[in-house]
Amino acid sequence: MSDGSQKSPVVLKFGGSSLATPDRIRLVAERIAERRQQGDAVVAVVSAQGDTTDELLTRLRELAPDAPAREVDMLLATGEQQSAALVAATLGTLGVSAVSLTGWQAGIATDPSHRRARIHGIAPERIRRLLAAGHVVVVAGFQGVNDLGDVTTLGRGGSDLTAVALAASLGGSCEIYSDVDGVYTADPRIVPEARRLDAIGYDEMMELAALGAQVLQGRAVEHAWHHGVEVVARSTFAAGPGTKVHAAAGTERMQPVTGAALDRHVARILCERVPDRPGIAAQLFGSLAEGAINVDVIVQSPSHDGRTDIAFTVADEDAPQAEEIARLAVARIGGGHVSRDADVAKVSLVGAGMVSQPGVASRVFRTLADEGINIIAISTSEIKISCLVRRTDAARGLEALHRAFGLAEA
Amino acid sequence: MSDGSQKSPVVLKFGGSSLATPDRIRLVAERIAERRQQGDAVVAVVSAQGDTTDELLTRLRELAPDAPAREVDMLLATGEQQSAALVAATLGTLGVSAVSLTGWQAGIATDPSHRRARIHGIAPERIRRLLAAGHVVVVAGFQGVNDLGDVTTLGRGGSDLTAVALAASLGGSCEIYSDVDGVYTADPRIVPEARRLDAIGYDEMMELAALGAQVLQGRAVEHAWHHGVEVVARSTFAAGPGTKVHAAAGTERMQPVTGAALDRHVARILCERVPDRPGIAAQLFGSLAEGAINVDVIVQSPSHDGRTDIAFTVADEDAPQAEEIARLAVARIGGGHVSRDADVAKVSLVGAGMVSQPGVASRVFRTLADEGINIIAISTSEIKISCLVRRTDAARGLEALHRAFGLAEA
Repeated sequence: MSDGSQKSPVVLKFGGSSLATPDRIRLVAERIAERRQQGDAVVAVVSAQGDTTDELLTRLRELAPDAPAREVDMLLATGEQQSAALVAATLGTLGVSAVSLTGWQAGIATDPSHRRARIHGIAPERIRRLLAAGHVVVVAGFQGVNDLGDVTTLGRGGSDLTAVALAASLGGSCEIYSDVDGVYTADPRIVPEARRLDAIGYDEMMELAALGAQVLQGRAVEHAWHHGVEVVARSTFAAGPGTKVHAAAGTERMQPVTGAALDRHVARILCERVPDRPGIAAQLFGSLAEGAINVDVIVQSPSHDGRTDIAFTVADEDAPQAEEIARLAVARIGGGHVSRDADVAKVSLVGAGMVSQPGVASRVFRTLADEGINIIAISTSEIKISCLVRRTDAARGLEALHRAFGLAEA
Repeated sequence: MSDGSQKSPVVLKFGGSSLATPDRIRLVAERIAERRQQGDAVVAVVSAQGDTTDELLTRLRELAPDAPAREVDMLLATGEQQSAALVAATLGTLGVSAVSLTGWQAGIATDPSHRRARIHGIAPERIRRLLAAGHVVVVAGFQGVNDLGDVTTLGRGGSDLTAVALAASLGGSCEIYSDVDGVYTADPRIVPEARRLDAIGYDEMMELAALGAQVLQGRAVEHAWHHGVEVVARSTFAAGPGTKVHAAAGTERMQPVTGAALDRHVARILCERVPDRPGIAAQLFGSLAEGAINVDVIVQSPSHDGRTDIAFTVADEDAPQAEEIARLAVARIGGGHVSRDADVAKVSLVGAGMVSQPGVASRVFRTLADEGINIIAISTSEIKISCLVRRTDAARGLEALHRAFGLAEA
């Protein structure tokens, strides 16, 4: 085996479903061993096995429904630590020398916040030393340590972020392994003719991730973009090139739309007859921001009698808290009725080519109208169009858009 | 609630069976909360829940039967970390502010070895600060960190050692909670008339722990003795004074024998016809010591034809490895046959009064002879007599000795 320090290292990240059973852990270890035996210096980042994180949360909620975030992190971080030890030990049985590291041992420093901590910096000396000595380093994903010496976690999908941040810090590339073999033009479970993309731009991937594509986590893509780390999304269980996420050149943008996405995990909060005066929206959305709630599509109706309706969407899980915050804020402002509507879903098209090709929006609206699908609200960015529709209409709308924009054809 | 920094702190240790279910965790949290509400500065040390440690080992062995000790420790340490987070969070629901700490966060430094690391020192500053701020500190037992920054574990019963070492470092006292309400003159499951002791000397407790009494771990008792930490063994589930372990005054030694113990988890290794020349025993037992195997009762038969038989006992779990090491060593020496006998058990009497009262040994031998029990080997110390017997004879022997020495009477 060649000395691993000669080449720039590769960071391989394996998700929870790739580690759910002993057989799968063995498969992951074989994947890692192959790369090591090819002479690569390999860092593996692992998530908690299968549903471990949810099971730990269930155990905790039964005892302490409002457990302090610090203790939640202390508990959850054990899942990835277990995976790391199991994978490192299994590599040993394949004749590959491996050492597992927790987040703090890997030098992953975060800000003081819990549950969704941000990586402040990485001190990669220990990993570098281990790689130079020929070891595979197996890092527990999803976690770090703050200045107080407390264990922190990075939020859902945080292991992707761990992998990208390590690749950036080590000057290497990053491969994210899951049970799908890349990024698709739409979810193949909903749109059977969906096609795997060979490549996608960082910007497009970020939008798709934000829209619920599970393959890669948005903050990880953002981090990769910012640090110029090439990321490949691949399957643990099948060979194949996967999807490369990179800074796409303009010429590759043949089609205006790259992919379509459907997010059913949204809810709409409607604030009716809110006084329409300057600063009202700032007050409402300021309160939501203080509650760490991400607000998505916002629609404000034309004013009537000095009052206006404001509607916005949030993630399903944030909806009860968002409704509560909105109710308090609207009451303080002297506004009217606040309600919550869970029967909504978001259908979106993403494509960096959109900005230079007019008429995409109108084609979206026409396509949905032809299907008899009512659009409740619209949100657009330079590379994305999202339409809020009834949940029952969502899958049909996605299929129609996928067809209308010819996404099945390469 | 008074400021916890005024009094010397109390360290309460809770074992795995006391934490096995959510209801039990709640009970443990209530016990801790009571002490805190009485104004004590409280450190709680917790083991892994129920059978967690064994379950983790089973998962690991399936993947890597000979996993490196470093990775075993990395895996096992998560069990106590989970307990600590769960107990701290549950304390919060009782209105008690609590912070969980891993071994490394609690400043527990160990030597470089794994699986049975020794505590080198404790840096208690963080715990002191948290106590002074009025928090209960919940420390993950059984673990520490070595100079390399690797997670280490302290071996079976290591959480007792964590608790005693913290009490020594903080200048406090220590209470060990389990599902029995103290130390008994013998195991009540075997000897129904066994009696709980109000107090026992460190020396006697160490012998009893070494002989398989599960209530307190021997290294923890040794550490307490060395640092003069008063330890009380109590029940999590019942009120009661428990058993105080301390430096007993001579006058308390009314009876020659304090307690009796039975250890079924032993095996006997027999090395037949080993050349009888100086240094042979040193070579054999030197090899076993290098293998980190504790050898107990050693018997060497009278020499015959320049050859001798050497027999010794080891813990059940060490027996296969001990046999292997002995076989290699004996072959090197030019010796004969090595065999292993698992059908043995050790019956012991412990009492600091033995040393000053003659005739204890002869009474032991007579009692067992009257029961028709054959003694395979004998080992004595100043405060202990152990007899190796057939496993089927062991319980009967223990009962007979308990009766013969009047241990049921206070």
